[in-house]
Amino acid sequence: MKKIELDQTGIFEEKGIKKFLVHDSAYFKIINFNIKAGQTFPVHSHKIEGQLSMLVLSGTGEFLGQGDAAMAAKPGDILISDISEPHGARAITDMRILVTIAPPI
Amino acid sequence: MKKIELDQTGIFEEKGIKKFLVHDSAYFKIINFNIKAGQTFPVHSHKIEGQLSMLVLSGTGEFLGQGDAAMAAKPGDILISDISEPHGARAITDMRILVTIAPPI
Repeated sequence: MKKIELDQTGIFEEKGIKKFLVHDSAYFKIINFNIKAGQTFPVHSHKIEGQLSMLVLSGTGEFLGQGDAAMAAKPGDILISDISEPHGARAITDMRILVTIAPPI
Repeated sequence: MKKIELDQTGIFEEKGIKKFLVHDSAYFKIINFNIKAGQTFPVHSHKIEGQLSMLVLSGTGEFLGQGDAAMAAKPGDILISDISEPHGARAITDMRILVTIAPPI
């Protein structure tokens, strides 16, 4: 049993995406990504079994999918996607997301 | 790929705990629990393999563990626990948590 305080990881990079590994085990991997306003977490996918959730902690932007698919993303919005399905995110304001991957990649 | 908006599930019961199933699959189960101020999500455990995360979305309270173990819990705090390890939560103010269980129970 352990506690992680995400208010301690609210750090952004001027360009690109700041990544904090919250947890990694045989069961799931949990990562906090902080995406600077205007930056994109590129759409990608992996040909493996499993799913991920992507929760917006703060800020606004869009969840991205295959092609030009985009869904508005605000705090409390959570995306569920197969790992094999294209997924990504774009920040409009500085945006923090929590991604949970099961089983871990 | 689907999006769930947790700002639509911010409903509390006067007594007890309100539960919203966010997602259930072969890979993980995601549940939003809304715990009214003063209420307790009782400490419990299951004798199965796996882990869970418990993220505070809003409100304050405590993460509970074996015996009298308690850790302060505020928005952005995330508890990681084995499913077989005793875990629970107590709300001081109205508290919303998001629990992810992998593999699903």
